[in-house]
Amino acid sequence: MARLMDIRLIEVSEGRAVFASSPADFHYNPLGSVHGGFGATLLDSAMGCAVHSTLAAGDLYTTLELKVNFLRPLSSGMGEVRGIGTVINTNRTTALVEGRLEDAEGKLCAFATGTCVIRRAGERGL
Amino acid sequence: MARLMDIRLIEVSEGRAVFASSPADFHYNPLGSVHGGFGATLLDSAMGCAVHSTLAAGDLYTTLELKVNFLRPLSSGMGEVRGIGTVINTNRTTALVEGRLEDAEGKLCAFATGTCVIRRAGERGL
Amino acid sequence: MARLMDIRLIEVSEGRAVFASSPADFHYNPLGSVHGGFGATLLDSAMGCAVHSTLAAGDLYTTLELKVNFLRPLSSGMGEVRGIGTVINTNRTTALVEGRLEDAEGKLCAFATGTCVIRRAGERGL
Amino acid sequence: MARLMDIRLIEVSEGRAVFASSPADFHYNPLGSVHGGFGATLLDSAMGCAVHSTLAAGDLYTTLELKVNFLRPLSSGMGEVRGIGTVINTNRTTALVEGRLEDAEGKLCAFATGTCVIRRAGERGL
Repeated sequence: MARLMDIRLIEVSEGRAVFASSPADFHYNPLGSVHGGFGATLLDSAMGCAVHSTLAAGDLYTTLELKVNFLRPLSSGMGEVRGIGTVINTNRTTALVEGRLEDAEGKLCAFATGTCVIRRAGERGL
Repeated sequence: MARLMDIRLIEVSEGRAVFASSPADFHYNPLGSVHGGFGATLLDSAMGCAVHSTLAAGDLYTTLELKVNFLRPLSSGMGEVRGIGTVINTNRTTALVEGRLEDAEGKLCAFATGTCVIRRAGERGL
Repeated sequence: MARLMDIRLIEVSEGRAVFASSPADFHYNPLGSVHGGFGATLLDSAMGCAVHSTLAAGDLYTTLELKVNFLRPLSSGMGEVRGIGTVINTNRTTALVEGRLEDAEGKLCAFATGTCVIRRAGERGL
Repeated sequence: MARLMDIRLIEVSEGRAVFASSPADFHYNPLGSVHGGFGATLLDSAMGCAVHSTLAAGDLYTTLELKVNFLRPLSSGMGEVRGIGTVINTNRTTALVEGRLEDAEGKLCAFATGTCVIRRAGERGL
C-alpha cells in the first residue's frame, strides 16, 4: 500500500517517524477532493513506524484504533505532505501515538491519535 | 483513490452505502499485514457515500473526524471485504455515521464512527 | 461517582447494560448547559458494565479508550436519560462496546464507542 | 457538575486552560477504581475552557466529540490531578483541542482530543 500510494520514509528515530507523499489526481474521490483514506494511510504509516522504533527485536504490534481529525483539505497541486508520528506513551502491552499531517509550509492538515497493541517477544513463548 | 485500490460501489440507498474490495499483495505494509489504510479507505468511502445519499442537490459535505477500531487482521487470501456505511443521526450542519468492515462470511473486521460537516446549498448563497 | 451523580442500574443481561439518571441543576457547567462529563459518565458506566457481564469470575477489565459524539444537548427539565451499553465484539484480550444515550422518548442524544482491555483470571497466575 | 466533583480552575490564557481536582472515595465505581467519568469530566472542562478563551464576546461553542485514551489508573490517595486543555487548531466554525490529564508529578494519566463547534455572534443574527 505504501508503494501503491508512493509513500516514502523520510526519517526515523526512537519514538518518531516521518513519511511523505504528494497527493495526485489518482487519490481523488468522486466528489473532487483528495480521499480521506490518503491522509489516514500516511498517518497510520508514520504512527505505526514510530511505535515500531521503540520495540525490541521480535516484538510485534498491531493498530487497535485510530482517530483522525481532518483540518484542511488536500489537493493535487499542493506538493508534498508529511505524516509525523510521535509516541506519547508506552507500557508493556500498549502504546499511544499521535500523528500530524503537515503541508510543505508546516500547516497542520490533520491530527490523529491511535493505540497499538504490543506483544513482547519474551511473552509469546519464543 | 477508489480506482487505485479497486474499490467498487455495491449498493446505495438513503442513509446507507456498501463498497467492496479484495485485499491484495500490493495493500501490504512492510510488516506483512494488510495496511490499516486499506480498511480506513474502504470505510471512509462507504460512510461518506451514506451521508451523501441523504443530501439534497447542491449540498456539500466533508469528513471532520473518523475513528476506526480494528478487530480482525485482513489478508490477501481472504477474498472480498465490504465496507457498510449507515447514517446514525443527521441535522442541519452535521451527520454522524457508522461503518462496518465485514469479511465474506459477515464477520466484523473493523468498526468505525465518523462525523461529516454539511453545508446546505441554500445557506451558501447559491 | 455513580452515587454522586445519582446513576441507577436499570437492567443487565449478557453483553448489555442500561443505566439511568436525570440531569439536574448541579450537573450544569458555567456555560449554562449540562456538562459533557455527565453523559460520558453515564455511558462509561453502561459500557463498562456491558463488558463486565460477558466476563468469567476473576476476569478484570479497564477502559482503554472512549469516544463520545454528542448529538443533542441535555437540560435539567428533560427527565430521565438512559445510557445503553452493548458489546460489539470481544476476544481474549479486548472488547469493543458501543453506548447510546437516549432521552425519555428514545431520541439519541449521544453515541459512543470504547475499548476495554481484559485480563483473564487464568492468565494472571491466579 | 464542576462543583459536584470539586473541580477548580487553576489558570487560563488564550488557547489554554488548566483545571484540578483530587480523586476521592466517592469518585470510585463498583469495581474499585476511580470512574473514567472523573477524568473525562476534568478533561472536558479544561478543553472546553481552552476553546472558550479564544472566542469573542457572544460567540458560543458546544462539544461535538471527545475521545479519551486512559493511560494510568487514578486512586483516592494520589493527590491532585490536573486537566490541561490546549487548542490545536481553530477556524470559523470548529476548534480542535487536546487534553492532558497529569498527576502531581507530571505523569500523563490520560490523553484526549475533541472537536468543538463554534457559532460566531455575528452569524446568528445578533
